Order: sequence, then C-alpha cells, then structure tokens
Amino acid sequence: MSIVETIDTAKIKKSADYIRYLALESIERANSGHPGLPLGNADLGILLYRYVLKYHSPAPRWPNRDRFILSAGHGSMLLYPLLNAGGYDISLEDMENFRQLGSKTPGHPEYALDHGIETTTGPLGQGFANAVGAAIEGKMLAQTFNEDGFNLFDYTVYVLMGDGCNMEGIGYEAGSLAGHLGLDNLIAIYDSNHITIDGNTDITFTEDVAKRYEAMGWHVDTCDIGDMEKLFGELQKLKELERKPKLLIVTTTIGEGLDKKRDTSDIHGAPAGIDEIAYFIRHSAARELFEKKYTPNDVADAGKLKEILTKRIENREPLLPYPNHLDFMAERQTGSKALYDGWQHLLEDYKKSFPQKYKLLSGTLDFKLPGSLEEALLDFGSPKNDATRGISGTVLNLCAREIPQIVGGCADLAGSTKAAVKGSHYIKRNDFSGRNIAFGVREHAMAAIGNGLALNRAMIPFSSTFFTFFDYMKPSVRLAALMKLNHLFIFSHDSIYVGEDGPTHQPIEHLNSLRLLPGIHAFRPANDIETAFSFLYFFKHMNGPAAIITTRQKVGEEVMGVVPGGVERKEFYESFEKGGYIFYETNPAEEPGIVLCGSGSEVALALAAARLIEERDRKSVRVVSIPCLELLNEAEVAYREGLFNDHKSPVVVIEAASHRGINFFYGKEVVLIDIETFGESAPGEIAAAHFGLTPEAVYKVIRSKL
Amino acid sequence: MSIVETIDTAKIKKSADYIRYLALESIERANSGHPGLPLGNADLGILLYRYVLKYHSPAPRWPNRDRFILSAGHGSMLLYPLLNAGGYDISLEDMENFRQLGSKTPGHPEYALDHGIETTTGPLGQGFANAVGAAIEGKMLAQTFNEDGFNLFDYTVYVLMGDGCNMEGIGYEAGSLAGHLGLDNLIAIYDSNHITIDGNTDITFTEDVAKRYEAMGWHVDTCDIGDMEKLFGELQKLKELERKPKLLIVTTTIGEGLDKKRDTSDIHGAPAGIDEIAYFIRHSAARELFEKKYTPNDVADAGKLKEILTKRIENREPLLPYPNHLDFMAERQTGSKALYDGWQHLLEDYKKSFPQKYKLLSGTLDFKLPGSLEEALLDFGSPKNDATRGISGTVLNLCAREIPQIVGGCADLAGSTKAAVKGSHYIKRNDFSGRNIAFGVREHAMAAIGNGLALNRAMIPFSSTFFTFFDYMKPSVRLAALMKLNHLFIFSHDSIYVGEDGPTHQPIEHLNSLRLLPGIHAFRPANDIETAFSFLYFFKHMNGPAAIITTRQKVGEEVMGVVPGGVERKEFYESFEKGGYIFYETNPAEEPGIVLCGSGSEVALALAAARLIEERDRKSVRVVSIPCLELLNEAEVAYREGLFNDHKSPVVVIEAASHRGINFFYGKEVVLIDIETFGESAPGEIAAAHFGLTPEAVYKVIRSKL
Repeated sequence: MSIVETIDTAKIKKSADYIRYLALESIERANSGHPGLPLGNADLGILLYRYVLKYHSPAPRWPNRDRFILSAGHGSMLLYPLLNAGGYDISLEDMENFRQLGSKTPGHPEYALDHGIETTTGPLGQGFANAVGAAIEGKMLAQTFNEDGFNLFDYTVYVLMGDGCNMEGIGYEAGSLAGHLGLDNLIAIYDSNHITIDGNTDITFTEDVAKRYEAMGWHVDTCDIGDMEKLFGELQKLKELERKPKLLIVTTTIGEGLDKKRDTSDIHGAPAGIDEIAYFIRHSAARELFEKKYTPNDVADAGKLKEILTKRIENREPLLPYPNHLDFMAERQTGSKALYDGWQHLLEDYKKSFPQKYKLLSGTLDFKLPGSLEEALLDFGSPKNDATRGISGTVLNLCAREIPQIVGGCADLAGSTKAAVKGSHYIKRNDFSGRNIAFGVREHAMAAIGNGLALNRAMIPFSSTFFTFFDYMKPSVRLAALMKLNHLFIFSHDSIYVGEDGPTHQPIEHLNSLRLLPGIHAFRPANDIETAFSFLYFFKHMNGPAAIITTRQKVGEEVMGVVPGGVERKEFYESFEKGGYIFYETNPAEEPGIVLCGSGSEVALALAAARLIEERDRKSVRVVSIPCLELLNEAEVAYREGLFNDHKSPVVVIEAASHRGINFFYGKEVVLIDIETFGESAPGEIAAAHFGLTPEAVYKVIRSKL
Repeated sequence: MSIVETIDTAKIKKSADYIRYLALESIERANSGHPGLPLGNADLGILLYRYVLKYHSPAPRWPNRDRFILSAGHGSMLLYPLLNAGGYDISLEDMENFRQLGSKTPGHPEYALDHGIETTTGPLGQGFANAVGAAIEGKMLAQTFNEDGFNLFDYTVYVLMGDGCNMEGIGYEAGSLAGHLGLDNLIAIYDSNHITIDGNTDITFTEDVAKRYEAMGWHVDTCDIGDMEKLFGELQKLKELERKPKLLIVTTTIGEGLDKKRDTSDIHGAPAGIDEIAYFIRHSAARELFEKKYTPNDVADAGKLKEILTKRIENREPLLPYPNHLDFMAERQTGSKALYDGWQHLLEDYKKSFPQKYKLLSGTLDFKLPGSLEEALLDFGSPKNDATRGISGTVLNLCAREIPQIVGGCADLAGSTKAAVKGSHYIKRNDFSGRNIAFGVREHAMAAIGNGLALNRAMIPFSSTFFTFFDYMKPSVRLAALMKLNHLFIFSHDSIYVGEDGPTHQPIEHLNSLRLLPGIHAFRPANDIETAFSFLYFFKHMNGPAAIITTRQKVGEEVMGVVPGGVERKEFYESFEKGGYIFYETNPAEEPGIVLCGSGSEVALALAAARLIEERDRKSVRVVSIPCLELLNEAEVAYREGLFNDHKSPVVVIEAASHRGINFFYGKEVVLIDIETFGESAPGEIAAAHFGLTPEAVYKVIRSKL
C-alpha cells in the first residue's frame, strides 16, 4: 500500500545532507552525542519518513500508524530531525537544546507518543524487542477488529537496529520468538557499518547474521545504502511479503560525509569537531545553506568557514533552516493525511456495520476500569487458605474476564506462577486470537515485548516468572518504570520458602532492589484480600508498572480474609493504598508495647509471634502489614508514624529478604529479622527454620534484643 | 586421545538404568526434583564418564582435567550418580539426602570442585556461558605454557544444555563469541527433547538451532541417543575437529524408561510417582537389583512392587547398591589414573626443561599477592585530580603488571571504563596470548564467561561496563557472589553525573541493589587512595567477587590523596577495611555537631558542604567516607557507632543513588539526601544541580532540617 512508485533521489540526498548538518551542529553545541549513526543513515531516514512510513503527525496516536523505532537509541539525532520534518512537535529550537535539561531532545529518545517517539531506547536490544511487541499488538488488533473490507489495523513496525542490538541476547530472544510467530508486519533494518565503540566488529562479531535470522524463521535481504532505488524497492517488497518477519541488512558507512572520521569508531559517540563539520559542509548539499546565510567565498575558504562554525557554536546561533527540505517532506504529510482521513471514514462505516465491535474498540483504546470489576476486587475473598500465587491466578482471571486488553504470558512457568488467562489459548502463527503468549525461556525478551505491547496504551500486558528471574528481566522492567508503562509483572516463588530448588531459585535481594527502582510499585500481598487489592491498585491508577510478588506456599488460615476493625472494604482499601496498615493489635485502645511488621508471608509469621508475646509476656502487640513499602513511604507523615506508634515502641521488621548494607542506617528502635546470605536447598519449612523464620525463633530474637 | 576404541553398549545400558533408578528414587524421597533430564540422558552420562571424559577423581582439581558442566542444572540427579560412579566424594547416602539442608546434593548443582561440580547451575544459559569461559581458559593456559612435546593443557570442555539454555539470550551471546574465537576445545551437547515446562517446544521454539549455530561459526552434528556407537564416534570425531566449537544435537526422550509420563512435560520437574517407578523397574535393568534384594515374584507382581517402593520411600531405606556398575565405571578410573600420572611425569620433565615457565605455572595455580604490589597499592597516589575511572584504569594496570592471572575485558566500552590491560592485545582465533577480551555488546555473557574463567582459580578475570548495564549482567554477578568466585567487576559512570546520555545511562537504584546482594563487596571509592585500596582489598582477600564503581567525572582536587590524621598507610588501610572512616573533621578533639557521610564523588560534596557549615554556623563537622557500606555494617559495633558519634549527632547521608522504600526504617537522626527518581539528560553539573547535589543545596537541606 505504498503511495508512490518512484522516488526523487536527488531530493532525498539534499534532505539527508540537511539532517546530517542538523545532527553535526546540534551535537557540537551539546559537546556530546553520537553523530556516527545519523550521518550513516540519513538517506534511509529520509526515505522512510518521506516515502515509506504511514503517519499523520497531527494525530500522533493514530492507532493504525506505522511505527518507527530507533533501537540504536544513541542515534537520536537521526530521529529528531526526521520527526521535525514529519511535522511532529519537535522544532529547530528543540534541537538547539539537544541533551539539555528538560528539552524534548534528550541524549537518547525518551518515550513521547505526542512527539512521535514510540519508545525509550538506548540500552541496546530493547527497542528491537519493543518492536516485536508492537508487531504482536498489530496482529492482535487486526485479528480482533478487522472485518472483510475493514482493514482497520494493518500497520507495519519498522525498527532500526545496529550491531549492538544484534549482539545483545535480548535481540536474539525477541527475534527467535518473532520468527516463531511469523510476524510479517515487522521489518527490521540492520544498520550494518562494521564499527562499534571499541573498533571494527571483526574484533568480536563475525557471525553470519543473515543466516542466523534465516535460522530463526526470518526473511532476509541485503542492500547498500548508496542505492536508494533498490532500497525503496526492497522496502516495498518486504512490506508485502507474508508469513515471516523481515530483516533488511543495509550496508552503511558510519560518519558518512566526513573526511578523516568517516568509517571509524571515533565518530560513533563523540562530536565530529569543527574541521570535520567544515569539510562536510563544503562537500555536501548543506553548502548552499551556508552560502546563502554567509557568502560563497566564506564557504570556499576553509579557514573562514571554520571560524564561522566556531562562532556559531560559541554564540549558540540558531540552526539554519532549509525550506526546500520542509517542502519536500511536507508532500508526505499531504499524502499521509489522505490515508488518515480514509481510515477515519472507514472507522465511521465500521461503527455502523459493527456497532458491538466498535464499542469494544473504543473501550480498548480508552481504558476505564469496569465498576463491576472494582466491586468484585474490593469484595474478593478466597474460599480457602492458599498460596498467593494461586490467589493471584484467580484474581488475574477475574480481571481478564472484564478487561479484554489483558494479554500476557510466562517464561515457561505458567503452571507454577499461575499467570495465564483461562479459557484462552496461546497466540501462534496466523492465529492471534489467544490472550496467552508462550514466551519460552526468554525472560528478558518477555519483559521488553510486554513493554512493546504496552506502548500504544491499547493492551495491558502481564509478564510472569519466578521472582529470582526478575534479574534476567531487570533492564526491561527498568524501562517500563521509566516510561510509566502499564505493564503488570507477576512474580511468584518469592523467597527462601521456595525450598528444595536451592539458592539459585530463592530470591533474597530482589524485593528491596525492586523497591529501590523508581517508577514502579512492588506489592507483596499477605493474603487473598491484599492480592486482590494489589491488582485493583494497578488497574485503578494505570500510572505505570506494578510488580505483584507472590508465595509458592500457603500463607496460613489465620491471615486469610482479615479486614482489620471490620471496616467497610472501601475504607479498608484506602488504608491499603497507603502502603501499610494495622493488621492486628491486642488492644486498639492501648499503646502497643511492641510493633511487628512485615510483608507477604511474614505477616502470618508476625501474627504468630505476636500471639506468643501476648501469651508469654502479657504485652500488647501491634502487627503492621506493609504490602507496598514505597506507598507507605509516600503516605502522610502522621499516618505512617502513627502506624508505628511514632516509633516510641520498638519496631520489629520481619522480612525473608535482604536488607544488607542499607540497614546500617535503620533506627535504633528497629530490630531487623531478615536474610543477608543466600538461601539453602532444603524443604521450605526447614529452610525457614534454618533462617530463623518461625514464630519461636522470632520470639527468641525479640526477647533477646528487647 | 581416547583411551578406548570400542564401547560396551550392554553395560552402558545397565549402568544407565541404574542411575535412572537412583534419580527416580532420590527424587521420590525428596518429593521434589526433576527426573526428566536424568532419565533422558542417563546413557549419554555413562558414556561420558566411562569412555570420554579425562578426569581423576582423587585429584579433582587436576588443572588439565576435562570439564563437564551441566548447564541444565535442574537435572542434578544425572550429575550426582555420575560423580559417584566416577569416584568423587558423593556417596549413595549423599543421594539419599538429595535436596536436604546441608547435603552435598542440593536441588541444583552447587560449585564444589572437590566433589567434581565445576560450577553452580540452575538459572538457564549460565553453565553454557561458563563453559565458554572455561574453554577460553584452556586456550590461554595452552598458549602460555604448552611447549613442543609438552601439551600440558589440552583439556576439553563438555557442556550439556537443554532447550532453555538455547532459548536464553545469554546462550546466544556466549555462543556467538565462542564461534568468533573458534574455541575448538568446547563441545556443547544439546539435549533436544522437544519438551519444556509449559509443554512441547513447538508452542514457542521452532527455529533451526543447527543452522543458527552454524551461522555463529560452530560445527554442528546430530545424533540420536539410541545409537551409542554413533554417539561415541561423534564425540571422538568432534574432539579432534579443529578451528570451531562444536554442537552435538542429541535427540533424546524426556523421562525415558517411564510408562505414561515418558515424553511429556509432566516429568520435567516433579517426582515420577510410585506407579511410574514400578513400571520403570519392571522394564529395565534395575529389575535385577530388586529381584536380588527382594524376590523375583515380588517384582513380577506390580502391586507388590509398589508396596515395596512405597515402604522404601516412607522408611527412607538406603538406595540399592549395584557393584557391577561401580566395577564397570572403575575401569575408567584406572585408565584415567594412567593419564593423570602421565601428566604428572610430563610436568616433572617440564620443570626441568622450562624452569622459568614452571615457576610461572606454579604461581598461576597458587595465587599469592606479590608483596611489592601490596606496597605499591598501599602507597598509591594519583599525580593529578582525575575521575576514579581513570584512576581505576591505572591501578588495574599496576596490578596486571605483577599478576599475570589478570585477564578480562569490556562490553564494547574499554575506552570509557578504562578497564584494559595496556601493552597487551585482544585474544582472537588461534592467538590467546592477549590479556584483553573484546566481549562485544554482550554484558550478560561477559559476566558469565568471566565466571567461567574464574572457576578453576587459575585466572583472575575482570569484567567492565557502565554501571547502569550491571542490570544486563546481574544474573551472572549473582552467581559469582554465590560461588565466591574471584571475579572483579569494574563499573564506571556511576550516577547522574553521567550527564547528557540521560536516564537510561544513569544508574540510580544500582548501588544499593548491589549492596543488598550477599557475597559481594561493592566499593565506591572517593579518590585515588580509596580506588587503590579497593583493588588491594580484592586481591588481598580473594574471597569472592568485588565491584569497583567509578565516576565518569573528576572527583575533585580537595579529596585526592587524603590520609586522615596523617597516619601510616598501613594503618589507614586497616580503617578502610572497616568500610568507613573519618575522612575529615573540624576538630578531632571535640564532638562533632553534625556528621556528614557519603560514598564516591559525594565525599567531595560532603566536604564542601562541611566547609559551608563551618564557615556559616561555626559548628564542628565530621565527614565520614563509606567506600564499602557492607564492610562497615560488619565492623565492630564500637567502631561503627563511634564513627557516627554514637548517633548522638545528626547524620546526613549524601548519596547520588536511590534509597527508595527502605529509607522508611532509617533512624530519626538521619537526614537523607539521595535520588529517588530517574535521572535527566543534561550536562553532568546541571543534572547534579537539578538533583540538589551541590554544596549550597546540601547546605540548605541541612539548615532546613536541623
């Protein structure tokens, strides 16, 4: 469905040189940045934004837009000029502030749909995996909503990747799954320039990339960036090709247009310098801009030109505009508008022909928590004592029944983490109607593909594995948090109670590591109600990712269904939202002699220890459950201090997790019962006893310290 | 160099059935474990330990032994019986305690060279990458020490991997590098059974694995486990084949020998159950053991046999011995002893012919910190104000000059992290004399390959990248800590001062996450001396991994070379080893009105803020530098409380890192100045100002809070 048959290679070249200029001068001003990629791929970028991509910048969230993801995010100065030329809200002034505080043009692209930035990239391989997620989303939307004559969703995802993205394991994981699923709406363009930061790729990366992708089920073609006609033809051909994702290997030259730094690793990540910029200007289409602004003689004189450039940088003079470039690029905007308007008409007709589906689509694109689900979650109770992983599975399905946007899967542990949509099947090649994704043993790609699914804000993905393998996913969980994506992470097997599988499978440091990460909430529910409330928090706020961390083992009859003070569920939920609440106390009317607190399964342990203290010491005890410490830390001072009796009573923190190092700063009133070594291979209860996590052992510590 | 030409397939089958029996009954007793892999690969295991591997169990650390690494670590009940049969210190009684607290037979294999366990496995893909490291070590040792007629090092590394290891990104990363380096001393055996936990691999893993490995530069062969003769022939052939690492894809059946659970995902990770065990016994060579112990009639009667088995499990009766199996396997021990003795003779001759090299070899295998280096590190000073990354590069080279065991590299960031051995080159195919490894953009494999290099305790590897990419390496850093491997992690670009590259490149939560991880020391040095001392700590103690976290930016003239109180360097180092010390105080004779503390570049900041307090408030201030918070936390109470004036004075903790969540428990006397959001793309100094990390801003916070 390309709009044009022929391309104007001369104009492409001129526009490409203009964005080379913008990249060079912006990076020089910032005295920091990566010119290599923008220079090498400028022509390709222009080709994409002028002839290939379907987008309508006045409606940047158009759900059927083609996606362009710059996985090699360091090349951000390729993207910003292209978005500028595409009519997005990024101006020359914005580029003048490249890499400055608060600018729209940070060092690496930062997720901003309204500016045409589809995702945050920089850590290599992530954007590529996001693209796989976006392609899956396209397939799902198409399968759910398209009807005969109504191809509402037929977008293509383009991703530009470099050697680094290909070397990263996450790139392989995501690529292997994309091949398995036959994602023919995905076109990866590999900027193959044989140069990385430390030198030529032949020092470390000599595999046959084309053959590898073929082995993964991809279609692979190769092209040189010098041949625009062929490149355009390839892109058109690949778009139509069915059944496989496609890799186009484009041979490029890093730092194209420069003199000595062309084709060297020097130009990867440092400003080119005045000499090189002057050389570039004198030998490129950018020359005419300078001749116009200054004089042809000034430009002909290399020394003079360098002086001019030096002054421009020093004085932070405005970047030179190039109206012909904008005119040329604007033609695409006109053509794209027609496509966009056509789609809107199609949608109107669709509304008439398929009113039910239209309603579903509107709901999908504009999520609201169903009131009935909110009620159900507020009132939730498990009929039996269970592990929170089992409860989490039940609650997830409760949600999935009412929220069609929920899709997701596990890294080959669905039976263990219980995170699967029941009554639905796995998506597979040519059938994306399922709501479960068999990610395989690919935790890292799972998290990044989930991010890709969440980018467009139509899908609400979940990803699940054992908590210990959070480590494998961390770089992508971090990006979910940074982008505030509504991506739900469900981690089961939360501590040493995992038992026999031993220390490699027993998370220790993970809980507090997750709390340290900005932008995400880590919930470790103590029982059925807290589990339901954790899900409710996520779906109610939709303000970024959450992690729900569940037990392998049953949490205990005595903590199930506890509603302290017998308050209304709504009021109880409000306490829950503060991150911690009084779970139990001997006598609410009197000051507690001691406060025990914990999260998850340790709440039951704290309660049992409290009973011992009551029995043996006739002391009044308070138990505080902390399902989300970050929320508690954000709560009003009076509330949170009040929970702990203003720290006038001793506070015992019980958590089967590491607080190593940082507990140095804990208050003198705090007795910490935690785990600061690795776990042990032993039955869960024996491991717990070994680590002093029994009521008796906890009681003993308290007695000895207080 | 195989010892035998022919194999006794009948005996292999019998021995294989015996270890199947051991696996089934041990797992049943533990009521937990993974029978699928041991059952599927029992014959292969016997073939390896009886005919293929070169080992001498009385000398388990023989440096030229072949390595066998079970990357699919869940199949540990394959390994334990094989080690038992190989004469290692693992008995039937040990297997009876499979997965019990303190046993030698934990759920997943845990690194124990003396028991023949080459590495800890379980998290998938790690063992495979360790194997690549061990193969690199073999190449390095061979190149350094072998002489004509003296092939001291010619060991082969065998690694058994499953579908999971192949799906994990780390497997690809390590495989790609192994292919690049042409590691022909590496034979990977792929247990291809088409089953993973969640079902058949065709739900998610359908790539052409053979073709992918070929693309990565590997030689690939395929074989069915049913054909032992062919399998043996293949293994012999592959061993001799040069120039490429080798993948042998062995088609197996998960749960081989069972009835209904054979070839199903049910048998992957749960006990087989009495019915299946009874079926197995009646249909396998294990039958004769039971007929002998009980009666042929008992065994012929399925019901009776099940009763017997149930009782055996309940009463925890000893595992049945099988002397013929041990006799058969012992023949290998005799043959291996000859090889071992031959090697010892060779070594004796080598000592005479190459006394210098022999001395080097002895030193390599038995590391001792050179006294001259210890002196140099104690006395170290940088001639100029510098970033700690630069200082770290200098110190690393100081160490590398005197410690030949130091080898390592970066994930394509050597120019930035400064972690490279100067005057040496990158290792490459057929030339492993270099001490630098160009890991490529493969952080995860880098860390795991480094672990592989460290396993044998001959090499002391370093791995390096930006601190933010610690995330990509975390699963392997965790294993280094768990195994207490002497692996040095050098992380530069430690916080928001990274500047323009923005939040994706600015570590926030990483510092405290690393502190939470047991078994590793995280050093964040404030200046030149602390940097040298951090290296000294690592090389002096050699008791596990350390991370040295360095700045991108200069740390400041005023903190360089500071020796508080002008004490002797040795005495100063002793304070350093306590993790924190008084860096500065207004007047040592009087109680400080306030204590400021921090690590890394924030020590200079604390010092500058201290000057402002002195000037403006005429208060006595103490500045405490905390290069390693974990060490400080382990220090004697009197020492650490004394540093903080027994917390009688207010304590200001300044750290450009997240303490989010956990700071809830910090003492009331603690004022925390940290970062609990993501970073910003801006010049480093502007970012620092934005986050309140200037002397003035710190001063203001202190004034407002105290």
